[in-house]
Amino acid sequence: MFTIDTYLPTRIIFGCGRLEELKSLELPGKKALICITADRLMHTLGILERVERLLQENGTDYVIYDKVQPNPTKACVEEATALAVQCGCDFTLGLGGGSSIDTAKGCALMLALEGDLWDYAYTGTGGRKEAKKAYPVVTITTTCGTGTECDQYCVITNQDTNEKLDFTSEAIFPTLSIIDPELMCSLPRTLTIYQGFDALFHNAECYVTNGHRNRMLDLYAADGVRTVARYLPYVISVPGDLEARTNMAYAADILGGYSMALDSVTSHHILGQTLGGFYNKFPHGAALIAVAEAYYKKVCSLLPQEFDELGELMGEQRNADKPGYAYVKALMRLLEETGVGELKMSEFGVRKEDFVKIVDMTVNQVGINIDRYKLTEADFMEILEQSWR
Amino acid sequence: MFTIDTYLPTRIIFGCGRLEELKSLELPGKKALICITADRLMHTLGILERVERLLQENGTDYVIYDKVQPNPTKACVEEATALAVQCGCDFTLGLGGGSSIDTAKGCALMLALEGDLWDYAYTGTGGRKEAKKAYPVVTITTTCGTGTECDQYCVITNQDTNEKLDFTSEAIFPTLSIIDPELMCSLPRTLTIYQGFDALFHNAECYVTNGHRNRMLDLYAADGVRTVARYLPYVISVPGDLEARTNMAYAADILGGYSMALDSVTSHHILGQTLGGFYNKFPHGAALIAVAEAYYKKVCSLLPQEFDELGELMGEQRNADKPGYAYVKALMRLLEETGVGELKMSEFGVRKEDFVKIVDMTVNQVGINIDRYKLTEADFMEILEQSWR
Repeated sequence: MFTIDTYLPTRIIFGCGRLEELKSLELPGKKALICITADRLMHTLGILERVERLLQENGTDYVIYDKVQPNPTKACVEEATALAVQCGCDFTLGLGGGSSIDTAKGCALMLALEGDLWDYAYTGTGGRKEAKKAYPVVTITTTCGTGTECDQYCVITNQDTNEKLDFTSEAIFPTLSIIDPELMCSLPRTLTIYQGFDALFHNAECYVTNGHRNRMLDLYAADGVRTVARYLPYVISVPGDLEARTNMAYAADILGGYSMALDSVTSHHILGQTLGGFYNKFPHGAALIAVAEAYYKKVCSLLPQEFDELGELMGEQRNADKPGYAYVKALMRLLEETGVGELKMSEFGVRKEDFVKIVDMTVNQVGINIDRYKLTEADFMEILEQSWR
Repeated sequence: MFTIDTYLPTRIIFGCGRLEELKSLELPGKKALICITADRLMHTLGILERVERLLQENGTDYVIYDKVQPNPTKACVEEATALAVQCGCDFTLGLGGGSSIDTAKGCALMLALEGDLWDYAYTGTGGRKEAKKAYPVVTITTTCGTGTECDQYCVITNQDTNEKLDFTSEAIFPTLSIIDPELMCSLPRTLTIYQGFDALFHNAECYVTNGHRNRMLDLYAADGVRTVARYLPYVISVPGDLEARTNMAYAADILGGYSMALDSVTSHHILGQTLGGFYNKFPHGAALIAVAEAYYKKVCSLLPQEFDELGELMGEQRNADKPGYAYVKALMRLLEETGVGELKMSEFGVRKEDFVKIVDMTVNQVGINIDRYKLTEADFMEILEQSWR
């Protein structure tokens, strides 16, 4: 019998052109700390200027922290927090992709909590203290893929310990998230593909590991998987198509975020995250893609019902002789259609001689017991060997 | 292009046997005002005793207000509020069906706001003041159908003006809603049918009137319609079947609540509510059923695409010669399967000579401009004439 556990308190304003509504929306404070990346992309695209104008019309003051790094660091969070304190900001605003938003979330925690950020990380060398409060967070998303705009997590890298760890607190569910697919039309092709697959895996991994226990998760994740399978090939061939962008943003930012908020991803994501930690030029989505075929060939027969359902959601038919394999077939087709079926991990700096370290980190340091497969070190070694190109 | 507007902040704990978790859940205060109906049903079924024990284990104090009427009245809300103030309650707990929960919501408003409850009603003789705050509300649902456990509305009757009006405030989204389908197995057969159709109409009316503008509403309402069509005949033939009860509670209490929270019902509900206001022995769901066939034969061709989609969700096929009629066919089949196809409004006290007054109230007093059909007085008169039995 299914149950439902849900708590998704973020107010979402989603749709083409809706960034404009920022000028009249009720915001959770008087002065925002805007977090943006150091690459000046928000300046170049003219988005920062628009957001500044809209905040002025709104009558809300702001300060800009413009040094966020691609994998947001503890040092950045601390620097941003100091700026927010100095300027008297009473909420944070993540503008951009996952790194800007997660910096805004980390900063919102530090503004409200005592001690060091790492006291509140719940894995690795983290202090596992409960983070019960945070300043309000607002997000304006310009990419497609992370789900952080609708969930209670942030991922921060500690450069002292080389850890990239999760923080979780219901206090960092954004108060308000504006998701405007028009802002995503200039995303480069490869990033669109990587983020699209990240979104697919967020939804699909949560669907499988949850195993129909939480009915709301089924509803969100199933529609997420269906939508990515349908629109990802389309958004790649017609990058400016707003219908396709809108559907991808819905699947990635809302459904992916909801799915993760209600359950968690699997060791596929742990392995991908570990690869990203070792090779900082290896984009997260690309790392997930690189190991996907071997990984799902290994696990699909362990939970055949769920994997066959996923395959069907993606338009594939199940085959009684190969239980669970419908998902593998659907996935391989989508990888091929989007031109990343032959993605080479060696081109992103991965070396075979690091495999032992990667597996050790995946299994022993981060912990893979989050899912229902319970893969061993030997399993992961086999997955990496088979994925090697 | 679709958009999404969503804000559904209620924490939901849903599933068979999960009432037991009340003993350890974090509650939003130290002392609850428990609102229950005057019919002593919560005593008889042993549910009140269980809730009292669980609150004691939780370490939370409580006071019981046990005079709630079937159509909850302003007088009851005022009496309950006085009790809560006198006893120092800091949150309210609606235990039972819609009337208990709406009394708890009305009371939560009055505890936080100045002036008279009617100052905050937004139709009829209401003062249309904005209700910006309320004490926290917890709900424990024992029936299936209202959706109030997951939305921001309450409906209260003013016996001085004979009005049954809606109150809306984001502050009365329940903080926590426990929905345990086991508590619903003793619901009488006719109530199960009436509430089942009410749930169907909540989802279906919102689906049609929204017209695919809000994608989250589509997701919720479509699954709500599909689930009621599948499980309502089943729950009637096997009343103790927990799988069927669980599905009906999901469709009614969660999806129906979410759908209404994100859009609104149509003039079908206004007409049903007006009939309930005139004849207080006419159950809400029965009033909706009595006029359904004539109402949907009248409107289905106005929005044929949406109505055909609804019909398909219920397992019916569309027919190009009769656009929109798939829903009418599906509805008539479900009415017949559940034995209420021939429900006689005359048996509930309705008199033909009241039709003019009923239509006047529906069109001119409450206002029907909430939907996309824009039916006239003549249309409603025709619907009532055709529904007469």
